[in-house]
Amino acid sequence: MSEVDADADVTVDFGEDGLVPAIAQDAEDGEVLMLAYVSPEALERTRETGEAHYYSRSREELWHKGGSSGHTQTVEEIRVDCDADTLLYLVDQSVGACHTGHRSCFHRTIDGEHVGEEVFDPDEVY
Amino acid sequence: MSEVDADADVTVDFGEDGLVPAIAQDAEDGEVLMLAYVSPEALERTRETGEAHYYSRSREELWHKGGSSGHTQTVEEIRVDCDADTLLYLVDQSVGACHTGHRSCFHRTIDGEHVGEEVFDPDEVY
Repeated sequence: MSEVDADADVTVDFGEDGLVPAIAQDAEDGEVLMLAYVSPEALERTRETGEAHYYSRSREELWHKGGSSGHTQTVEEIRVDCDADTLLYLVDQSVGACHTGHRSCFHRTIDGEHVGEEVFDPDEVY
Repeated sequence: MSEVDADADVTVDFGEDGLVPAIAQDAEDGEVLMLAYVSPEALERTRETGEAHYYSRSREELWHKGGSSGHTQTVEEIRVDCDADTLLYLVDQSVGACHTGHRSCFHRTIDGEHVGEEVFDPDEVY
């Protein structure tokens, strides 16, 4: 078995633009919910609060997921990939992750087939 | 239910650098295996061959995953997120996805705890 060193934080490689992609996955059933980007501040806030924070590239600001919709993500574990340039948030997702009303942002195939579960009416939330 | 239109391919937004992140997830047990980047050519080759192709940013070339190690990924389905700028490959992974010998590249927590399964000896493969 490999080493277990629970005291040694992994140094995340935020790269040139200061962001890393983070995958949010349902901690319970394994569904991949979304991908967004994380800044050092977003990661720090996520670890401090236990709720997923990202960096919105379109709004150019720290983004507390669910801050306005109430559809927050309680982060149960944060994993880092082998190159330390991608994060995996294992989360307990409130209602749905996608602004379209679906549980997951990956609600269609590349062929345009609808495969995702609709869990709320976006007109009532946003 | 929403529309199902199996004939209408989703137009992927490859953005300024011509790449989108692609998450590879085990189609059977849902484990997130890796994240890599995909060019239009890599996506085309993936759809043509049924085996996952990426674009290696470090080598700056098309990358047939498992081409040298034999640890290929048979792609069962490709999903696209709501913004059409991230892909999800649902795959049947041969042996392991990570060059470190782990099944998944996400084999440790951000606290440095080892959580992943080791499935091969990288010294014997590479």
